[in-house]
Formats: sequence, structure tokens, C-alpha cells
Amino acid sequence: MKLRTGFVRASGYAYKVRRVLFALTRGKVSPEEVVRAAGELNVRIFEELQKRGVDKGDVVRIGVPFRIEDGKVLWDYSGLEIEVYRKEEDEKLAKAMEEVEERERALEEKISRIEELANRLKELSNELLGEIEEIKQEHTSLRLRAEG
Amino acid sequence: MKLRTGFVRASGYAYKVRRVLFALTRGKVSPEEVVRAAGELNVRIFEELQKRGVDKGDVVRIGVPFRIEDGKVLWDYSGLEIEVYRKEEDEKLAKAMEEVEERERALEEKISRIEELANRLKELSNELLGEIEEIKQEHTSLRLRAEG
Amino acid sequence: MKLRTGFVRASGYAYKVRRVLFALTRGKVSPEEVVRAAGELNVRIFEELQKRGVDKGDVVRIGVPFRIEDGKVLWDYSGLEIEVYRKEEDEKLAKAMEEVEERERALEEKISRIEELANRLKELSNELLGEIEEIKQEHTSLRLRAEG
Amino acid sequence: MKLRTGFVRASGYAYKVRRVLFALTRGKVSPEEVVRAAGELNVRIFEELQKRGVDKGDVVRIGVPFRIEDGKVLWDYSGLEIEVYRKEEDEKLAKAMEEVEERERALEEKISRIEELANRLKELSNELLGEIEEIKQEHTSLRLRAEG
Repeated sequence: MKLRTGFVRASGYAYKVRRVLFALTRGKVSPEEVVRAAGELNVRIFEELQKRGVDKGDVVRIGVPFRIEDGKVLWDYSGLEIEVYRKEEDEKLAKAMEEVEERERALEEKISRIEELANRLKELSNELLGEIEEIKQEHTSLRLRAEG
Repeated sequence: MKLRTGFVRASGYAYKVRRVLFALTRGKVSPEEVVRAAGELNVRIFEELQKRGVDKGDVVRIGVPFRIEDGKVLWDYSGLEIEVYRKEEDEKLAKAMEEVEERERALEEKISRIEELANRLKELSNELLGEIEEIKQEHTSLRLRAEG
Repeated sequence: MKLRTGFVRASGYAYKVRRVLFALTRGKVSPEEVVRAAGELNVRIFEELQKRGVDKGDVVRIGVPFRIEDGKVLWDYSGLEIEVYRKEEDEKLAKAMEEVEERERALEEKISRIEELANRLKELSNELLGEIEEIKQEHTSLRLRAEG
Repeated sequence: MKLRTGFVRASGYAYKVRRVLFALTRGKVSPEEVVRAAGELNVRIFEELQKRGVDKGDVVRIGVPFRIEDGKVLWDYSGLEIEVYRKEEDEKLAKAMEEVEERERALEEKISRIEELANRLKELSNELLGEIEEIKQEHTSLRLRAEG
């Protein structure tokens, strides 16, 4: 298998690597392993970007082969490819990727808000189940949690 | 402290003991201990009711002192009082308690239905949180569960 | 059909009439009509209880035939029966019904709490749907409410 | 005010116009008016793109001034600017925008799923409130909906 980030601003390559890896390995690898493997790869990419003097406003495109063994992601670093497009040379591309990044931040705010509401829904459901259990305890002969 | 069941049909004394004990000890004793202690007392009451030839349609009224020590309910059986009212002698009382029992069964059906709905609400909330986590993994740089 | 309240404390006859009428006519008569019809009957019963000098601690048992026509409840007042059991004469019955009333009040508090939680769950669901609609508006090409 | 789409694939300009307009006018204009105004503008843009032989794989960038009067969006078509970048000339830009479009489709699928779950949560909350109302009707003296 091969992970390909597609075009992405250098400032955002690490999250892009992780997102793509999540999508590629869903159901095969644990979320913890995805986070670990992406972290490992991103250190390597970071060193390379530094070596080549890449600016966060430049655009990069990264590809790297990997395989999955025993639920672990194994990177084949020998096949690592990093293309760099300088913002001075590819102005429109750099600007377009910057816009994409901005819209993602706006989306993230809304997703956070939705997550908060979903968490409150879960808490309320639990509170409701607690109240129902009290009614069962004090007003019915229904089977209780404490009866296992 | 003293547990008093009030008037109750003999057929329902055990649940009545438990309900009253739940109400009296809320916050002081675990639900498991309430179930255990009620069970222990009910065995004793059962023997006594058998000895006295009580019918399930008769009405009883039970009182028993207890104290709480280290989260445990300790019954003072020496103070156990059981009044019995035969349905042949107290017809109206027996009939009234029978009606109460019927209405409780109707309530229990509805409480069961509400509990079922509350459980489904909780499951749906969890499913929703799972979907939101996937969006976070594949489309955002928000903090993930797998990051601890 | 015949509405029968069973034994009930005089203080609570009006709600008992209404509850029984709800249970008997579910699916055949609107809730508004149940409230109206129970109210109409209760005025009549009230006058009769007053005439007979019934105390709120006495126990009563009421029966009245009715039929349903065009979604309306029509009482047959000629068949109205009201039995009265004075608390001085039927002490145990009066005490038992008093206990029932107390337990109902405790249940009502818990039902109110559950209703409050269910209302908050509904509000949160609506809030969530509002946030999702905003995401759809600003981040997707999915069909919007405003598109009908 | 000025609506600016930023870089976008020609295939997706219409939704981009609408999304940006939603974000810019939130709280000032009704969703229905945003949909209408975006539709109106998009017809005009479509004609222009056709005239210039723009392919859906080309990238465009659109700007147009507007003002809001009485809750209506009024476009100043005299200020309409449409930049076109042919995919043969700006290959990387065209490819990058194609990738963005693909990821948006993946996001849309997940948002649809979340909306579905949120709708079921709302339905369940309503069902729960219905059951609670029945309990109130048949087992309590709490205030009912039918009492207004």
C-alpha cells in the first residue's frame, strides 16, 4: 500500500499524513497505532523538510509505501518521496492551499461544537437512566442493575 | 431507624420492603447492599407469614428497626412486628390493596418502555460520538481519543 | 362503558376520575376531551360529596356509566354511584389510602424530573440539528432545509 | 461587501458561491434568501463560463460586490470578476482542487450520517415525551399538555 498526501501546505503536512492514514487503514489498525505510526513518519518528513529549507507556506506532496503486520504499520522509508513547490514559484497553488487550510479551521470549530453537544446528549441520557433506576428502585418490582 | 412498609398485600410485601429501604437509605448504602439486606429480611418475614398461614390476598403491615454500620444494613430482628389483616375480615382494605397492586403493574409497563427508550438514546449518543470521532480523524486536526 | 374509580381518598377523587378515564378511552377520545369530561363529572361529584359532608380524609368509591359519541364523552348521571367510607369507621382503609397518596406524590416528583430531562434532550437534539445545518450550508453541497 | 470564492474547480463553483454567501451573511439574511440569491448569481456566472468555454476541470476564482437591503441580497453585476485557470496550463492547481473536491465528498457522506443520527435522536426524544405524558395522564396529578 502507499500513502499519498496529495498537495498540502507544508504547515499542515503532519495532520494530512495522519488523516490519510486513518482513512486507508480503517478497520485494520487501531487508532492508537495510526497516531503512533503517523507520528513516527512525520518526524522523518520533518527532518527532510528542514534539510531542504521548506517554508510553512510552501506546498508539498508526499508519498510513502507501507505494509501492515500484526496490526502495526511498517513504513518503507526507502520509497519515501517528497515533492516541494515553493510559494514564490507556484503562487496560485500556494494561495489555494492556504484557502483550504482556512476553511478547515472553520470546519473544525463547528465539529468541536457538535462534539460538545453530542457529549452533553450522552451525559443527559445517563442522567435520565439514573433517574429511571431510582423510580424502579422505589416504585416498582422491575429488575434492578444491582441485581446483576 | 425503623423500616415501616405501611399496608401492603402479602403478595407484594417483599418488593415493598425493598422499595422503602431504598428510599430510607439513599446515599448511605449501596444499591447492592439494599438488595442484599432486603433479601435477608424478606426470608425472615416469609417464614413468619408461612407460620401464621397468611394468604397472598391478606394485607400485612411490617415494621423493623435497623442501623447502618460501615455501609451495611443491620436488622434488629428482636423488634420485628408483623400485623396481619385477613381478607375475609377486612374486605375493603384487601380490595383496595389489590387495586393498588394492579395500578402498579400498569405503571411498571410504562416505566419499562421509558427505560428502553432511554437506553436507545444512550446508544444513539454513543454512535454519534463514534461518527464524530471518525470525522475528526479523517478531516480535522482536532485532538483525538487515541491521543489520550 | 362504566368508569370505576376503585377506593380513593376523597381528597384525590378528581385526579383518580381523570386517570381512569384516560386509561379507558385511550385512542378513542382526545386528551382535551378527557380533561373536559372529567372536569364536568368532577363538578357533579363535588356537589354530591359536599351535600353528604364528606371529609377529604374519608375514602370514596365512584362509578358512573358513559358512552362515547363523535369523540365526546357523555355521562349517564342517572347511574352515578358514590360510596363513602368515613375515616372514623374504616380507619385502616383510610390510613392505607393516605399512604398511597403519599407514595404518589413521591412518584410525581420523579416523573417531573424525568420530563425535564426529556425536554432538555429534545432541545439539545434541535440545537445539534441546527449546528449540522450550518455545517451543511457552509461546508457541503448537501440538500438544505431552505431548499424545501 | 464582496463575495470571493477563492480558487475552486469550475465543477463546484455554484456550491462554493452559496457556502461563502452563507458564511458572509449569517444572521443578516434568511437561508431561503441565501439560496435564492446564490441561485440568481450562479445563472449569471454559468452563462459567462459557457461563453468562455470553461471546462469543469478548470479552476476559477470569482468575485462580486453586493449589498443587503431589507433582508435581500443585491448583486452588483457590473463588478463581477471571473478569473479562469485552464487545467492544461495550471496542472498542479487543477489537480489540487480536484483532490479538495474528493475530500469534500467524503466529508459530506459523514455529515449526512451524523444528520441522520441527530434526526433519530430528536424522534426518540419526542417518543419519550409522549410516553411520559401518558404516565402523567394515567398515574399522576401533574399538569398535562391538554390543560394548555
